Amino acid sequence: MDAVFQVADRMDSFGISRRGEPVIAIGGGVLTDVVGLACSLYRRSTPFVRVPTTLIGLVDAGVGAKTGVNHGRHKNRLGTYHPAVDTLLDPAFLTTLERRHIGNGLAEILKVALIKDADLFALLERHGRDLLDSGFQSPGAGAAVLGRAVHGMLQELQPNLWEHRLERLMDYGHSFSPTVEMRALPELLHGEAVCVDMALTTVVARRRGLVGSGQAERILRLMRRLELPVWHPLMEPVTLGEALADTVRHRDGRQRLPLPSGIGAGVFVDDLDAAELADAAGWLRAWSADVVRGSGTRA
Amino acid sequence: MDAVFQVADRMDSFGISRRGEPVIAIGGGVLTDVVGLACSLYRRSTPFVRVPTTLIGLVDAGVGAKTGVNHGRHKNRLGTYHPAVDTLLDPAFLTTLERRHIGNGLAEILKVALIKDADLFALLERHGRDLLDSGFQSPGAGAAVLGRAVHGMLQELQPNLWEHRLERLMDYGHSFSPTVEMRALPELLHGEAVCVDMALTTVVARRRGLVGSGQAERILRLMRRLELPVWHPLMEPVTLGEALADTVRHRDGRQRLPLPSGIGAGVFVDDLDAAELADAAGWLRAWSADVVRGSGTRA
Ligand SMILES: NC(=O)c1ccc[n+]([C@@H]2O[C@H](COP(=O)([O-])OP(=O)(O)OC[C@H]3O[C@@H](n4cnc5c(N)ncnc54)[C@H](O)[C@@H]3O)[C@@H](O)[C@H]2O)c1
Ligand SMILES: NC(=O)c1ccc[n+]([C@@H]2O[C@H](COP(=O)([O-])OP(=O)(O)OC[C@H]3O[C@@H](n4cnc5c(N)ncnc54)[C@H](O)[C@@H]3O)[C@@H](O)[C@H]2O)c1
Repeated sequence: MDAVFQVADRMDSFGISRRGEPVIAIGGGVLTDVVGLACSLYRRSTPFVRVPTTLIGLVDAGVGAKTGVNHGRHKNRLGTYHPAVDTLLDPAFLTTLERRHIGNGLAEILKVALIKDADLFALLERHGRDLLDSGFQSPGAGAAVLGRAVHGMLQELQPNLWEHRLERLMDYGHSFSPTVEMRALPELLHGEAVCVDMALTTVVARRRGLVGSGQAERILRLMRRLELPVWHPLMEPVTLGEALADTVRHRDGRQRLPLPSGIGAGVFVDDLDAAELADAAGWLRAWSADVVRGSGTRA
Repeated sequence: MDAVFQVADRMDSFGISRRGEPVIAIGGGVLTDVVGLACSLYRRSTPFVRVPTTLIGLVDAGVGAKTGVNHGRHKNRLGTYHPAVDTLLDPAFLTTLERRHIGNGLAEILKVALIKDADLFALLERHGRDLLDSGFQSPGAGAAVLGRAVHGMLQELQPNLWEHRLERLMDYGHSFSPTVEMRALPELLHGEAVCVDMALTTVVARRRGLVGSGQAERILRLMRRLELPVWHPLMEPVTLGEALADTVRHRDGRQRLPLPSGIGAGVFVDDLDAAELADAAGWLRAWSADVVRGSGTRA
């Protein structure tokens, strides 16, 4: 919130007019979330234009209506819905972005692929590594992947922009990760925490027979190929239990947990229990150790 | 905002669920504004129920969709539109309210009367003083005045809840008062600052021939009978100029200044200038000094 106040104070000293002078927010997801919140609060709403400059910004933070900041020990605990009046998406910004932040954005793209777009998953299997290497400048593949990812997000957000429905496919990877990301700070980037969450729930889905073991193997291998983590020491029963409890509050008393159903579709469940979670985390820990040793256990 | 954070932190420690457990805000306008903002921000919106316990709360702060807090040196600089899921209006709370806070609420009722309800003005002339004395417990008159005031507010707010239209009759008395109230802190209560603003704009309207001199006299006399101030030393050209400049930014580049047209109707003007303002303030200063001396210059 301190950053939000700084932005509000600059709006004051600039003497901005209430409706006719949109603030232009150029930067990563943190910046557009902070400036968006400041604009939302300033005189109870001032318009803003978003120009995301990171991959997460281009495919996710820059696309929806949400603003937010962390508060206390909690991810995005304070925020608003405040759609930008315009959003300009230009992948040329990515040429200067660090490789790790490209991977970070690829995690949010993988989210869309896993839960609703098998073709996008295939594109990521084929071109994901190139896109990481080229900073999304690979002709053809870059535009195709960005296009499908943004389109998939918009399809989900548009009919449910204010989240009156709490079963949200786009919450995939965002059930355990808010707590893990905050407790691991600053170790895991946002997309990395999301990826660890997706790896865990992929294993849960495999154990429930929702995802085949060959499919689970492809998913986890793709994560590794995109240089994303599939496990973290915080993936242990106590933290996972607390993370799920907070998510249940966030989803108004029910888990409403999105799980992949095969590759490219999702279902919601309400009955995940602690034993199942501990099992999946244990299995993932072993798989991840094996991969690091190069022995390649099958999922 | 510190108070907003305190409320959010208590929501955290309570472990409130996102939709099913509305926060119940019981208190004056400051409290319902602060709790409303906390609820609006918490997980990007948590429902709340308002139970206003002051007269300003019953007729104004408890009725609309606005939340807000002062920030920097500015009144309500940060806030949101976050309608309560329910509002319970019970005038029995007023039995313990201090006399000065009854007068404070009468100022906001007078606003509705002056700008859109001549019958309400007549009720205030007839019963206002009794209502002040009895803390709104006078049978008949109390309910009639509260009913008309709330009804008038709702008529204006309902079709323009998000303030897409910036010509708002309910902004009457709120053009100069935000700056005056903040600079005078803690001297003037909110309604008192609003009253000083209404006295000034009544004189402007009289000088423009919008309000007759007999009407202006009735208005100013009623303010005095309700023990409300009609002038303040901050009503001088520099402060008034700065106040108007900020209001012009708030109204997106135009004055959109509501002025009474007779008693019980309003018009909007865009062309108030510094000389006219200084003139009106000077006249009001003299009138107010005369009244205090008891010599009774005519308006
Ligand atoms: N509002 C939403 O709907 C939404 C959705 C997803 C994520 N998010 C939020 O977005 C945040 C993550 O966003 P992010 O990954 O953009 O992080 P970020 O904003 O921290 O940016 C990452 C880093 O890249 C730098 N950077 C930005 N653009 C650059 C460029 N073109 N070249 C070189 N460096 C550049 C930044 O200064 C920063 O150091 C998380 O906090 C997450 O909660 C919000
Ligand atoms: N949101 C809106 O649309 C809106 C509209 C009008 C005013 N407001 C805001 O409301 C505020 C003024 O509200 P207010 O006049 O209620 O001030 P307030 O909330 O400060 O209350 C006045 C005082 O009365 C006390 N009190 C409250 N209820 C009482 C009761 N029943 N008995 C005895 N004491 C009681 C409070 O503790 C406080 O000391 C201003 O800040 C103004 O900006 C907001």
